[in-house]
Amino acid sequence: MNDRHHLTLHTDKYQINMMYAHWVQGTLNQRAVFEAYFRKLPFGNGYAVFAGLERIVRYMQELRFEEEEIAYLRTQEENYREEFLEELRNFRFTGQLDMVPEGTIVFPNEPLIRVEARVFEAQLIETAMLNFMNYQTLIATKASRIKRAAPNDLLLEFGTRRAQEADAALWGARAAYIAGFHATSNLRAGMLFGIPVQGTHSHAWVQGHDDEEDAFRQYAEALPDQVTLLVDTYDTLRSGVPNAIRVAKLLEAQGKRMMAIRIDSGDLAYLSQRSREMLAEAGLPYVRIVASGDLDENIIFDLKAQNAKVDVWGVGTQLITAADQPALGGVYKLVAREKDGREEPVIKLSGNPEKVTNPGRKELYRLVNRKTGKAEAGYLAMTDEDDVRNGETIRVFDPVHPYLSKHLDDYEAVPLLTPIFADGKQVYELPSLEEIRAYHERQLELFWPQYMRKLNPEVFRVSLSEKLWQLKADLMKQHQQFGK
Amino acid sequence: MNDRHHLTLHTDKYQINMMYAHWVQGTLNQRAVFEAYFRKLPFGNGYAVFAGLERIVRYMQELRFEEEEIAYLRTQEENYREEFLEELRNFRFTGQLDMVPEGTIVFPNEPLIRVEARVFEAQLIETAMLNFMNYQTLIATKASRIKRAAPNDLLLEFGTRRAQEADAALWGARAAYIAGFHATSNLRAGMLFGIPVQGTHSHAWVQGHDDEEDAFRQYAEALPDQVTLLVDTYDTLRSGVPNAIRVAKLLEAQGKRMMAIRIDSGDLAYLSQRSREMLAEAGLPYVRIVASGDLDENIIFDLKAQNAKVDVWGVGTQLITAADQPALGGVYKLVAREKDGREEPVIKLSGNPEKVTNPGRKELYRLVNRKTGKAEAGYLAMTDEDDVRNGETIRVFDPVHPYLSKHLDDYEAVPLLTPIFADGKQVYELPSLEEIRAYHERQLELFWPQYMRKLNPEVFRVSLSEKLWQLKADLMKQHQQFGK
Repeated sequence: MNDRHHLTLHTDKYQINMMYAHWVQGTLNQRAVFEAYFRKLPFGNGYAVFAGLERIVRYMQELRFEEEEIAYLRTQEENYREEFLEELRNFRFTGQLDMVPEGTIVFPNEPLIRVEARVFEAQLIETAMLNFMNYQTLIATKASRIKRAAPNDLLLEFGTRRAQEADAALWGARAAYIAGFHATSNLRAGMLFGIPVQGTHSHAWVQGHDDEEDAFRQYAEALPDQVTLLVDTYDTLRSGVPNAIRVAKLLEAQGKRMMAIRIDSGDLAYLSQRSREMLAEAGLPYVRIVASGDLDENIIFDLKAQNAKVDVWGVGTQLITAADQPALGGVYKLVAREKDGREEPVIKLSGNPEKVTNPGRKELYRLVNRKTGKAEAGYLAMTDEDDVRNGETIRVFDPVHPYLSKHLDDYEAVPLLTPIFADGKQVYELPSLEEIRAYHERQLELFWPQYMRKLNPEVFRVSLSEKLWQLKADLMKQHQQFGK
Repeated sequence: MNDRHHLTLHTDKYQINMMYAHWVQGTLNQRAVFEAYFRKLPFGNGYAVFAGLERIVRYMQELRFEEEEIAYLRTQEENYREEFLEELRNFRFTGQLDMVPEGTIVFPNEPLIRVEARVFEAQLIETAMLNFMNYQTLIATKASRIKRAAPNDLLLEFGTRRAQEADAALWGARAAYIAGFHATSNLRAGMLFGIPVQGTHSHAWVQGHDDEEDAFRQYAEALPDQVTLLVDTYDTLRSGVPNAIRVAKLLEAQGKRMMAIRIDSGDLAYLSQRSREMLAEAGLPYVRIVASGDLDENIIFDLKAQNAKVDVWGVGTQLITAADQPALGGVYKLVAREKDGREEPVIKLSGNPEKVTNPGRKELYRLVNRKTGKAEAGYLAMTDEDDVRNGETIRVFDPVHPYLSKHLDDYEAVPLLTPIFADGKQVYELPSLEEIRAYHERQLELFWPQYMRKLNPEVFRVSLSEKLWQLKADLMKQHQQFGK
């Protein structure tokens, strides 16, 4: 996508400073375990849809310091010694990277990425990984909300001109497709990812002709097999729809069927209903109605409640920027570090209890009830805990309110963190986008509807194992005692 | 930045469909004039800061259809004829491109980009130009608001991990710098644009050591010439600041001065005041205080009103995503087209009066009072109008409320649209970033403070020439008569 060397410095300077300081103090090879997660769901939604893995894998594959970067860093910091730059020249990722597959339904405080590597390496990649995970997960989640507002309609991603620069348009289109959108308008996303691409014409096409009917006819002659006509340039019901109907009749005379009309302004409920009636009266029930114009899941939901006759929704700005919450606050926290040759769990305290980290290297399980086939809880356990893997009876509880607990026995514990790189080598074969979409659909089926609703969803609990809970309590006590 | 051929399809499919339809009907070489502008200022601000020009120029320089694109388009649309793809293979931008320089203060309905070209070319570039202009202008404007909240402090852009993908982090850092930020954390932005880059260390650095003082000391030993210590990992006032003071004293013993401490959580007003006192008591008045943590212009404004002792502000998410309004609704409208060999102005009507376009090829002037040196109004005139250029007495009026008018005589009319490409050749030398920053500062001096305030600024009027006003009225009447 980008020249590979250009993304190696897609990082914060403090990462290089810390790498340098580790190098100076001789700790660059110490092992460290970091986990990335978010603390709060966006949009008041009940779940998030993880995305960003493929982008991260491509980034990792091409992570090298080339001469351009080395030369730049040399000018940046007089403190950097030449031997350090030499170390960077030989930099390779040699660690373990585990991630949740794209399209997985995920929740707050669930580790979505786990890195175990030399601290030197683990530090460098933080910024880029968070950047990719935060944006793509945000957009996939937003797209999923829109999808749930119109589960049986066609959904088109139309946001490129309002996206936050070119990468957002590209990877946002992909994230939306993962979550169930059907096509994008962005040709580059189509070319690079194989996403279906859709497009019609703009108001300028109509303005560029002496009259609207002529504009429509010319367009239909050029592209007779996928005619969608934008009918709101002058007057949707008095001019646009009647002209579109005339052109549809001309197409019928050639044995072709007009695909759709598009309405981009005005009252979409009323205009779509009237347009549907006019098309029906003209014997054109097959012509679809596309609506566009600053739509989001709430507007679509309301329009459908008002019985708008829309078959296809073109969603732009609100989706591609996640306008009501344009950032997912994903973080990347040290959970364990090598000390005296052993792995020691690490905690970060905070005045805000929800910001206290879960220490130690963890696994993330989705506990699925074997009777119902539905997910009962998320479950975080230390990597070395076997009881959950073996299906033994476990207690799950709300980590903020531990009295809310229950015992589970007849469950399957599905581990979600998947090895992507091992000893610096990619061990994960990237699935196709269609496979990711299919996996995402299966993921959705795991959850009861109350977790999925748009407004005030039920909270899906993510439990800690008793061992992890105890470790956390012990470390908190330790830090309080020593006043650090 | 990107492989050049990859951005040629950074466009909506409907652009290629319209290009194809023009090609089929033989109108691909018709001249068309498009203008890009936005209708509404973001954030309730009184002005916007234009940015995006350099990105657009680089995009235009490299606009070619390579084999990969041609092959992809061939698979996309069975209707596309091979000769059309051949036409794309020979595609070059041969037109005129005029733009407002980066850093210019601009207002709603002012044409910021004007394209005059074969309609075939003008259509292709719409999406990418809007994408670049919309995002970068948005971020420069947001940065300018933050700058005005803390005009004398150092401002650092820290948003990469929360940006909407990599391009946003990169070009957003540049936009913020244009508007007066002093540095970014993003090394790639530093390498590619020469922006100063700043960075310190994260909480993980402190957690990765047995105690905080040791972590600080090790960091200061590695990078003694720019020590900024993050003091809130455990307890800012009881642990972080005292430890930082000890390290500052060690540095003094080596003849060095610690640069700063950074506070990333807690009550920034109180913590900065107490930290400042502690530093003063320790004889370290030169150590600066950096504040970070979900800051925006309102929080900074309030903290300063509460006398927070902060010298440097690190601003992330809220700036890089323009979180309170993450899209600028810039549009690209046909204003004139070739008809029977002449250029004919075109209008687009709308049920919403503010969406009716200003027809015809226009110039944009900033009318500057010769006595005060301050801008009096924006002024849109047809390209062929000389009176304003010659400084003759003109009437300026609010186009929505024309009775609000005044006569101007002692003014200079500064044309803002600058030739960038002429006959497809670049005729504009890209200024350096430092030149752009300096130009932007001069731009700010043109405006009275009432237009610049954060809350409820006075509206700066953009007037139409009487000739343009009349043309608009005539075209509206014409369209109403013909019912189109």
